Amino acid sequence: MSLNTNRVGNHPGSGHDPSQSTTISIPFSPETMHEVCRPPAKTTFQKLRHKLSEVFFPDDPLHRFKNQTCANKIMFALRFVFPIFEWAHSYNFGLFRSDVVAGLTIASLAIPQGISYAKLANLPPVIGLYSSFVPPMIYAVLGSSKHLAVGPVSIASLVMGTMLNDAVSYSSDPVLYLKLAFTATFFAGLFQASLGFLRLGFIIDFLSKATLVGFMAGAAVIVSLQQLKGLLGIVNFTSKMQIIPVLSSAIEQSDEWSWPTIVMGFGFLACLLTTRQIGLRKPKLFWVSAAAPLASVILSTFLVALFISKLPNIATIGQLHKGLNPPSSNTLYFHGEFLAVAVKTGAVTGLLSLTEGIAVGRTFAALKNYQVDGNKEMIAIGLMNMAGSCSSCYVTTGSFSRSAVNENAGGQTAMSNIIMALTVLVTLLFLMPLFKYTPDLILAAIIVTAVIGLIDYQSAFGLWKVDKLDFLACLSSFFGVLFVSVPVGLTIAVGVSIFKILLHVTRPNTSVLGCIPGTQIFQDLVRYRDAHRVPSFVILGVEAPIYFANCTYLQERIFRWLREEEDWNAANNGSLLKCVIIDMTAVTAIDTSGLAMVNELRTMLEKRSLQLVLVNPTGSVMEKLHQSNNLASFGPNGLYLSVGEAVADISSSWK
Amino acid sequence: MSLNTNRVGNHPGSGHDPSQSTTISIPFSPETMHEVCRPPAKTTFQKLRHKLSEVFFPDDPLHRFKNQTCANKIMFALRFVFPIFEWAHSYNFGLFRSDVVAGLTIASLAIPQGISYAKLANLPPVIGLYSSFVPPMIYAVLGSSKHLAVGPVSIASLVMGTMLNDAVSYSSDPVLYLKLAFTATFFAGLFQASLGFLRLGFIIDFLSKATLVGFMAGAAVIVSLQQLKGLLGIVNFTSKMQIIPVLSSAIEQSDEWSWPTIVMGFGFLACLLTTRQIGLRKPKLFWVSAAAPLASVILSTFLVALFISKLPNIATIGQLHKGLNPPSSNTLYFHGEFLAVAVKTGAVTGLLSLTEGIAVGRTFAALKNYQVDGNKEMIAIGLMNMAGSCSSCYVTTGSFSRSAVNENAGGQTAMSNIIMALTVLVTLLFLMPLFKYTPDLILAAIIVTAVIGLIDYQSAFGLWKVDKLDFLACLSSFFGVLFVSVPVGLTIAVGVSIFKILLHVTRPNTSVLGCIPGTQIFQDLVRYRDAHRVPSFVILGVEAPIYFANCTYLQERIFRWLREEEDWNAANNGSLLKCVIIDMTAVTAIDTSGLAMVNELRTMLEKRSLQLVLVNPTGSVMEKLHQSNNLASFGPNGLYLSVGEAVADISSSWK
Repeated sequence: MSLNTNRVGNHPGSGHDPSQSTTISIPFSPETMHEVCRPPAKTTFQKLRHKLSEVFFPDDPLHRFKNQTCANKIMFALRFVFPIFEWAHSYNFGLFRSDVVAGLTIASLAIPQGISYAKLANLPPVIGLYSSFVPPMIYAVLGSSKHLAVGPVSIASLVMGTMLNDAVSYSSDPVLYLKLAFTATFFAGLFQASLGFLRLGFIIDFLSKATLVGFMAGAAVIVSLQQLKGLLGIVNFTSKMQIIPVLSSAIEQSDEWSWPTIVMGFGFLACLLTTRQIGLRKPKLFWVSAAAPLASVILSTFLVALFISKLPNIATIGQLHKGLNPPSSNTLYFHGEFLAVAVKTGAVTGLLSLTEGIAVGRTFAALKNYQVDGNKEMIAIGLMNMAGSCSSCYVTTGSFSRSAVNENAGGQTAMSNIIMALTVLVTLLFLMPLFKYTPDLILAAIIVTAVIGLIDYQSAFGLWKVDKLDFLACLSSFFGVLFVSVPVGLTIAVGVSIFKILLHVTRPNTSVLGCIPGTQIFQDLVRYRDAHRVPSFVILGVEAPIYFANCTYLQERIFRWLREEEDWNAANNGSLLKCVIIDMTAVTAIDTSGLAMVNELRTMLEKRSLQLVLVNPTGSVMEKLHQSNNLASFGPNGLYLSVGEAVADISSSWK
Repeated sequence: MSLNTNRVGNHPGSGHDPSQSTTISIPFSPETMHEVCRPPAKTTFQKLRHKLSEVFFPDDPLHRFKNQTCANKIMFALRFVFPIFEWAHSYNFGLFRSDVVAGLTIASLAIPQGISYAKLANLPPVIGLYSSFVPPMIYAVLGSSKHLAVGPVSIASLVMGTMLNDAVSYSSDPVLYLKLAFTATFFAGLFQASLGFLRLGFIIDFLSKATLVGFMAGAAVIVSLQQLKGLLGIVNFTSKMQIIPVLSSAIEQSDEWSWPTIVMGFGFLACLLTTRQIGLRKPKLFWVSAAAPLASVILSTFLVALFISKLPNIATIGQLHKGLNPPSSNTLYFHGEFLAVAVKTGAVTGLLSLTEGIAVGRTFAALKNYQVDGNKEMIAIGLMNMAGSCSSCYVTTGSFSRSAVNENAGGQTAMSNIIMALTVLVTLLFLMPLFKYTPDLILAAIIVTAVIGLIDYQSAFGLWKVDKLDFLACLSSFFGVLFVSVPVGLTIAVGVSIFKILLHVTRPNTSVLGCIPGTQIFQDLVRYRDAHRVPSFVILGVEAPIYFANCTYLQERIFRWLREEEDWNAANNGSLLKCVIIDMTAVTAIDTSGLAMVNELRTMLEKRSLQLVLVNPTGSVMEKLHQSNNLASFGPNGLYLSVGEAVADISSSWK
């Protein structure tokens, strides 16, 4: 059949010649008409089961167990619970050699970072080393990532330090502070493992990449400024974490500035930043930046030890006791006034460290083309933190910088974590007295070097270029963290992200479609300049689920499109509208408010002598149209599988 | 060209014969290949402007002013601000006669209801009459609905009574209570008018119909039980609003039960409920239910006046002073400890009464085929409440029951509101002493009769049948109101509604598509039993925006579909997969996390020697793919306008 169609006049006044009109042919024959099917009938229980399995088990974790012998099932179950069995049986000397090199390399980074990050959390330096021993051993058995290097990380350390410090300061009551830190670690682990067990891992997806870019940059700025304490040699520094008190404290305490500390601190900082740049620019020289922190620690310790009599003002770590992790399960704190602080700190640090660990694990898995199971990773990270809390460790997770070094140094399996842990063990048992003269300034310099890489201004610029609302989420978490606090910053950013989803649903895109000549393809008239209007029809595309939040808007918008199309017709060819077709392909769901709206729309259009036709509703929409008896009121000519069939059949019925 | 396709074997073990295989032809010729267009280029400012105009001005409110003379523009502006000018110039005696009948009818309902609802808000009865005089006059000038009958309503009265009573009780400090009531009314009006002025009317859409069904039923149950005070003649009744204290108070105070009150109260209640049923069953007899309240008031007042000496236990309204609304603007309260209560009460009652007013206005507009402008209605309702708060009125809005009576009685314009207000004026000036012996029990019976209609169990059953999550929202607001409080119940219900949107985005529907023989239509294999797989291709449909909240899920789900398709192929024909096509028609938006996911997916599939092809991305997705340089990496064979073209072109390139 052939139809006379009208050339699109996009926007009013866009300069098109409205009189231009061509005759195009839509390929169509009545015998090719197709019915719109409903999904296979299911009981409420089946639907609920399907929905729950999609929500909680989208990856079908038990698919490997299907159609297997009993022995195989047991083996798979063992591997499922302890991923170490995935690789242990095929482990060989070649892999071991690679892992030893990688393990020693990350240990050289983990020891100075462990000490530094513990200071960031206001904890004694040795806790950082304890935390680099027990958790990596446990992760090596339970974790499914081959490249994740486990230990304390800057963000979680910072957040724990800030949140606990608001309740009690380490200097005034060190025993209580330690108790709270271990308890918070326990709750962080419990929270992480529960998310994994309950398969609620998707909750961390709500901390979108945009949010994290802003959050990490804000945290990096705050942490770097906090290090002015060590780099300037200030003794009485503020313990607040907002940018204004930190900066004013650094300036007000200028009488405490120690020039030898400043010269040495900024000198080492410059060296570390230079080696970091070298590592970034030439990936082959990654070992320069990987070895730099340990080298700086050794060098600065020597310098201070040699000149200690002449430089009494330089603060050092001081005497550290040799020995393994003491048990701490007896210090866990499950009652009393500070329990709420510990639980809240645990939840926030748990969530943040989980997000970092999972993101890092996924990044390297994608790079090396294997898959990590998010929920299993959560259980592994959670259990290692729970075990850590009983052995004097604080919150740990997979660190981005050390995992990158691990991968660069050739790490092949989780064995590199074991090698690292054993190296830390040797340090704890024999090398602790060597840190006596290690200056605080070098720890500050190491922290600044580590966190400065978290300021990802290129990603932020990318967000601005591509998605302004993502950029807004990024900015709000950045400024929230900088000026208010970590939980507030994160809450605002998650709020902005959710607002974005709601805005998208509340104000969806709608468009008038036209036919692309010679095809049955109907597309947006504004976007496809060769698409033509079909006379007597208004074909509308709706790009959203029809929900309570948008059904009023959609009704108003549809009537506005109708008015505009009527105006266009009156101005151009005087033809009358007879039929409104709604292309439901992108209407992914409908609720009871939406169903009422569709029904009301049909009645209102009927009163204006216009027929309403629905095209290609998706499965769930089709089901609900049927259940609510809406389908029946549309009649046989109210529903088609494609716009082309609808146009052809309805216009032939007018003849 | 023709392709060999495979019959769908839907679910594993669904009993299909997998060897069944047919050769179908997909109509296609290379010269009909179409390019995917990007939307016309726009600057950031243009995009922002378009987005803002869609968010705030979807109805294009100024369209009537386009291309008009200056005089016309002034006339339209006048009508725009004062809708009374829309109908005043063509008003005639016929319309007036209808409006007088309707106005007198709703006045006969409004007077007893006004007195009753004022008691519900713990206010003196006369405030209810004041509130039926000033606000209707103002609405008649500013409102755009022809059928809305304005005055106090049960829900807003109840909520105001509850929330203010938590702070201060009328019996202990009547002056402060009145001050707070007028102040709350002022803030309710301010809030309503601001929503209209700022065009934020869509906020009330978040109180979905499902939520309101549950909320109104819960409120109706509570209100009805509260009326046991009047119906049983209890003097010391609880002022709490949860179901348990109300019920236990009614039972514990059984020594205060007054049998004459009970007999008379339940007798009138039975009469009123019977007339209500008559009105519902036979719409022509609506006047029976409309006249019943006034008739009952008159009859019961007579009875009490006659037998007052023998029935001293029956509580009556008592002496009411004649006279017009006294000014109350001097009592508004803008500082001090109770300001927060007044603002909060104003916001909640304002939101609820606005929702009711707008919903009622829209219902009758749809019935009579005219449109009301939501934002203008909000301004009208807001201004009438602000004016009311300065003339001793409390919160008013459009009442469902009185509007229905208005429409039934033949009301044609807002003049019926003026007639009603004038009738109330006469009552205030001359008839007040007649209410001296009106018993409280009749007010209780009128309230029960009015609110019992709010329990819409049929709608609740419809929700259960069609949409389980809507039913859950309904239930949570019902039980929240019944057992906790009005704001908590509403917050939970809105939370459930938002959760539903987030769940839909977090776990979207995906499906494997197949070709319907003889067409270029590709549809879900599970739903369309005659659709066929295309060998070497996996064609996936994704029905959601690709956002941070679902990109991990989608990636996992796509790999699961791939695994399942590979298993199916291995079991049935041994053919190898070469190409993954994603139909993006229903992907209505994408954010930076989604773009990163698509890019990662492409890289991961490439490592498995699979080509990734996108089909028909929507305008905004196309734009972002381009801006993020993702398009370039897809190359010339990575993007098609339709699945048919993609399949045909790619499979021809393999030959």
